[in-house]
Amino acid sequence: MNPQTKIITLDQIKKILPALDLLPAIEQGFAAYSAGKAVVPPVGELLLDKGDVHIKYGYLKEDEYYVIKIASGFYDNAALDLPSGNGLMLLFRQKTGELVSVLLDEAHLTDIRTAVAGAIAAKYLAPKKVQRIGIVGTGTQARLQLEYLRQIISARDVLVWGRGDEQLRHYQNDMEKQGFHVEITLDSAEILRTCNLVVTATPSKKPHLHARDLQPGTHITAVGSDTPLKQELDAEILKRADLVVVDSISQCLERGETHQAIKAKKITSGKLVELGDVISDKASGRTLDTQITIADLTGVAVQDIKIAEAVFNKALKS
Amino acid sequence: MNPQTKIITLDQIKKILPALDLLPAIEQGFAAYSAGKAVVPPVGELLLDKGDVHIKYGYLKEDEYYVIKIASGFYDNAALDLPSGNGLMLLFRQKTGELVSVLLDEAHLTDIRTAVAGAIAAKYLAPKKVQRIGIVGTGTQARLQLEYLRQIISARDVLVWGRGDEQLRHYQNDMEKQGFHVEITLDSAEILRTCNLVVTATPSKKPHLHARDLQPGTHITAVGSDTPLKQELDAEILKRADLVVVDSISQCLERGETHQAIKAKKITSGKLVELGDVISDKASGRTLDTQITIADLTGVAVQDIKIAEAVFNKALKS
Repeated sequence: MNPQTKIITLDQIKKILPALDLLPAIEQGFAAYSAGKAVVPPVGELLLDKGDVHIKYGYLKEDEYYVIKIASGFYDNAALDLPSGNGLMLLFRQKTGELVSVLLDEAHLTDIRTAVAGAIAAKYLAPKKVQRIGIVGTGTQARLQLEYLRQIISARDVLVWGRGDEQLRHYQNDMEKQGFHVEITLDSAEILRTCNLVVTATPSKKPHLHARDLQPGTHITAVGSDTPLKQELDAEILKRADLVVVDSISQCLERGETHQAIKAKKITSGKLVELGDVISDKASGRTLDTQITIADLTGVAVQDIKIAEAVFNKALKS
Repeated sequence: MNPQTKIITLDQIKKILPALDLLPAIEQGFAAYSAGKAVVPPVGELLLDKGDVHIKYGYLKEDEYYVIKIASGFYDNAALDLPSGNGLMLLFRQKTGELVSVLLDEAHLTDIRTAVAGAIAAKYLAPKKVQRIGIVGTGTQARLQLEYLRQIISARDVLVWGRGDEQLRHYQNDMEKQGFHVEITLDSAEILRTCNLVVTATPSKKPHLHARDLQPGTHITAVGSDTPLKQELDAEILKRADLVVVDSISQCLERGETHQAIKAKKITSGKLVELGDVISDKASGRTLDTQITIADLTGVAVQDIKIAEAVFNKALKS
């Protein structure tokens, strides 16, 4: 083996993660992306009978490495007692093309960097006083979003919506152990009616949340839709919003909630602001507590680049 | 680590390779590709200051795996005493997305599958009696092409062209040890004037070979150009050819010698035949010894798929 290639397993990654300060690293990634300092080609996609695979890759010009990330979703895996998500990240040296590290993360770092992006969105867009956090979904991402919000939001009251009572009870049980007070509901309308910070984290193709339930002063982060077909929010919600923030304008024209709302002619691309510009203060985040704000996150390679670099740099020292 | 992920190092790969019968495997890959049985999305590309990276990926519907291959060329690496080529291959299960194997081949398997494709082209297109093999270039691929031609062609007389006397002497010395009789030249015109099986294997952007030197009964395999800008053959050569065979029509419209000849309006896409169709007898290869034939090989993911599967399957047994 090339002595310079460091293989990092999922177990090692899980041990390293708690020691990392990922929020500033990924904020820096978003800011560099929006400032045009990142090279991020279009996402590669491979469609199979049982799932789909995305290849996200690129680099920041000021960095030492480029990153290629492979992440897949195979939705029949549960029946085989396997996780639906899978994949790995690869770190190469920008000057020579040498493979510096293979991060066998099995999609865990994609989950984490998505949760971190949710926390960043909340930092800039959530109302000052969050009464109750609303979570749509009960899967891995619905858990991680809440976990990472803890760093940013002091509220511990949570309402979670899911399709089945059993998953809801599991979610409630697990997240209460982490110090949240969790109530459950089978009526998704209750989320927007009673929570002013909402995160949606499902692979749905039909909206869970509707504009008729939307209250002033709400922020919604939508992380579930990352394809042209998935949709968690009624397009009317984006029309009613005072501010629609996206991780990547070019990508959100093709994928996610924004894509759906533009297709439905509810908004135009002129309404979109990039998260990186909010972070670097080139654009405003929330300015009034009564505003309705949306963050549509489809996932960009700069997040993968930043988390892969952070894990690798820490692994080198340990 | 996921116990199912097998890491295979370059040393292990080099030990496995001699035991593999790659020609039939890769022939089958080309045939499946041309029969529409392969899913091969467009090549992903990442351009950096010092080099470029290609991501080739796909699968054969009848196979068990999909493959993602990363290969890079960093042309200043020689000054750092590093090889210019680098990369790896990844094998995933089609049904679940599980990462089955990481082949840390450092681009060696890309070199080998390219050499195997050259041998396959010679099998179907070289004239019955090869007097002398002409090689354009003195690098790794120029060596491997000759090495793999040995399986197909009985001629051992070789003329090699290169830009420098030192590289030519090295090539001569190394290939004579392998049983070839090698003469050297600094005049590239001599290649087409005295050899009837020619392989070009350089990253040139200006043609080495010209139609004025072309003799009846010659076959030329061009493997060096795999981008829209590289070119080893005068476009007039493709016009004069009786048969132009390509590994992938769609890819060769965008890259390689064919792309150049079409851009120069010397040929149209109607002249192109796919190697896979020649292999499976849906199209004719060489039918007369006096014909001029060209094989333009830009490299397709099916070659990577087939070589990665062959190495992995053998590694499982050893």
